[in-house]
Amino acid sequence: MTRFSFSIDARDGKARTGRISMKRGDIRTPAFMPVGTAATVKAMKPESVRATGADIILGNTYHLMLRPGAERIARLGGLHKFMNWDRPILTDSGGYQVMSLSDLRKLTEKGVEFRSHLDGSKHMLTPERSMEIQRLLGSDIVMAFDECPRADQPRDVIAKSMEMSMRWAQRSRDAFDSGTEHASVAALFGIQQGALDQDLRKQSAEKLSEIGFDGYAIGGLAVGEGQEAMFATLDFAPDQLPSDRPRYLMGVGKPDDLVGAVERGVDMFDCVLPSRSGRNGQAFTWNGPLNLRNARFAEDTDPLDDRCSCQTCGTYSRAYLHHLVKSGEILGAMLMTEHNIAFYQQLMQAMRDAIAAGTFADFAAEFRRNYLRK
Amino acid sequence: MTRFSFSIDARDGKARTGRISMKRGDIRTPAFMPVGTAATVKAMKPESVRATGADIILGNTYHLMLRPGAERIARLGGLHKFMNWDRPILTDSGGYQVMSLSDLRKLTEKGVEFRSHLDGSKHMLTPERSMEIQRLLGSDIVMAFDECPRADQPRDVIAKSMEMSMRWAQRSRDAFDSGTEHASVAALFGIQQGALDQDLRKQSAEKLSEIGFDGYAIGGLAVGEGQEAMFATLDFAPDQLPSDRPRYLMGVGKPDDLVGAVERGVDMFDCVLPSRSGRNGQAFTWNGPLNLRNARFAEDTDPLDDRCSCQTCGTYSRAYLHHLVKSGEILGAMLMTEHNIAFYQQLMQAMRDAIAAGTFADFAAEFRRNYLRK
Repeated sequence: MTRFSFSIDARDGKARTGRISMKRGDIRTPAFMPVGTAATVKAMKPESVRATGADIILGNTYHLMLRPGAERIARLGGLHKFMNWDRPILTDSGGYQVMSLSDLRKLTEKGVEFRSHLDGSKHMLTPERSMEIQRLLGSDIVMAFDECPRADQPRDVIAKSMEMSMRWAQRSRDAFDSGTEHASVAALFGIQQGALDQDLRKQSAEKLSEIGFDGYAIGGLAVGEGQEAMFATLDFAPDQLPSDRPRYLMGVGKPDDLVGAVERGVDMFDCVLPSRSGRNGQAFTWNGPLNLRNARFAEDTDPLDDRCSCQTCGTYSRAYLHHLVKSGEILGAMLMTEHNIAFYQQLMQAMRDAIAAGTFADFAAEFRRNYLRK
Repeated sequence: MTRFSFSIDARDGKARTGRISMKRGDIRTPAFMPVGTAATVKAMKPESVRATGADIILGNTYHLMLRPGAERIARLGGLHKFMNWDRPILTDSGGYQVMSLSDLRKLTEKGVEFRSHLDGSKHMLTPERSMEIQRLLGSDIVMAFDECPRADQPRDVIAKSMEMSMRWAQRSRDAFDSGTEHASVAALFGIQQGALDQDLRKQSAEKLSEIGFDGYAIGGLAVGEGQEAMFATLDFAPDQLPSDRPRYLMGVGKPDDLVGAVERGVDMFDCVLPSRSGRNGQAFTWNGPLNLRNARFAEDTDPLDDRCSCQTCGTYSRAYLHHLVKSGEILGAMLMTEHNIAFYQQLMQAMRDAIAAGTFADFAAEFRRNYLRK
């Protein structure tokens, strides 16, 4: 069986639909990956995550290396067995989280030294250690170790950071390939940097293609630049990456972000938004987001979304969910998260269907009319 | 179909096993009722609660009258529909919670005036209002409104309180019977009071029998008196109640409390312990409780209990549960609660089987050897 293959079944404008095949299962693209930060998609059992239609989930290297620890997970048989998810898992490299979450960071060419936000313990992440951790976890899609700078910094800062990330990409490639069994079953993705700058993005894409990866991520977006600037960057960034490889936009996003990014040629996404929003009482629907804390739902017997096929919508009223959310009940977090993850998967399926049918432009226009009310 | 019937299939010493039949389903006794305080058994979907073997759950009048409100639940079609539980629900009367949870209580012969612990709003609970609320909720087993005094007070205080509770029991009976449709489908239980005093308990039981109820609860225990005092009271209290009616020990308890109470003739129980402990990282097992926060479980690949048939034990290691509990993950609360509720149901089934087989004394001795290590 193939280690990693990507086939594009249909194109519609820049949008593509297809399939990644790996040993642990296929991933239909465009794909949304629910985030399972600490070896759990928060508030959901793994079989419920799968039942929403998710083909792959994401695990966070930074969180898992600190708790319960990569070596411990390896001793326990790997992340899949530990958390009872037997389909593909993509792990990030820790590069983004170490800069956003940890304390007392020291960034050098070698890597990042930092203190855990949990207990203050000292750690070092390098391209080599990141590859080792992702191997210990048993990741199916391994991400190269990169630095993700804030997009609002001067061009020379962005350029220097991007260039170091490209050296780290080479070191990641070398470490990944260095004779472990893992390289024969897992895939390695590179990460394009360069913030909003077309020329830096181009340089980054060329360097990554030269090194050669199974897939290519677009990093350094969804860091506060806003949707307009993100879309402006996505007008060129995906085209700079090899067209026969999956393109993964990291950390994105809202439903309308996903539609706009697929329209621009992106194949994969991950984001905490559906799960985090679910825990906070926000539901995504085809008619836009709903805040279930709002008193107007107190006696609303409708489901969250009458087009949604999830168990929450088939079983529970907005009135009940309003009550659970207002009462801080765990079941509220459970049911809202399940709906949101299911809604995201239904959105991805609708996009795959529209691309296959050659009607993506109509789909996107109709989606925006309903979702954004414009 | 019968409104309410109770049949005893087997007796073994004072222990009995049988069945309560109601329109919404049968309740196998001895029965443990998971507590669904705010219209949810915390951290569990209702179908998972049912899958553990629970025939009936409990709802709290005090919590539900304050949020979302009994009239609101009635407008939404009743508690069963609201929370998606179609089997029997027992509701308490609010008498206990109003004294333990609310602010600024004023107790008179008429009832209790109090302020909500949620928003300070003023409310009044009387026997008549409690019956009305339980009717609005659509309760299957309605509890009479009573006062539950602390057991460590002087005998005359306990006696006066019990006597008022018996007048309230009559008012509850009268209000319940006063010509609503609800009385033709629901059952009404009286509540024995009298703390640890055999004579007061006897007076209370006689008064309740005189009024006549479908079942009889033993109230005023599990309020801090300790297991020894509770068992000493249970040595006589169940015998004072009609032997052909179910006897319900309110708010109890630990697994060894349940075994000792069944041994003394109790048929029904409710307690927040399995769900609350689950959320706090404590698991009940046939070999005693386990605190999953303990570092000794960090790499323990065993299930919580190798005799348990629940999904948690069939799927997840102690190591994973330790990780989830330590990380404060909602999935930890979900899986631990599910195990604990399932363990309680398996314990009840084992007791029912032992009584039917006439081996309850052996079962209880074996249980204590393993559970209490003595």
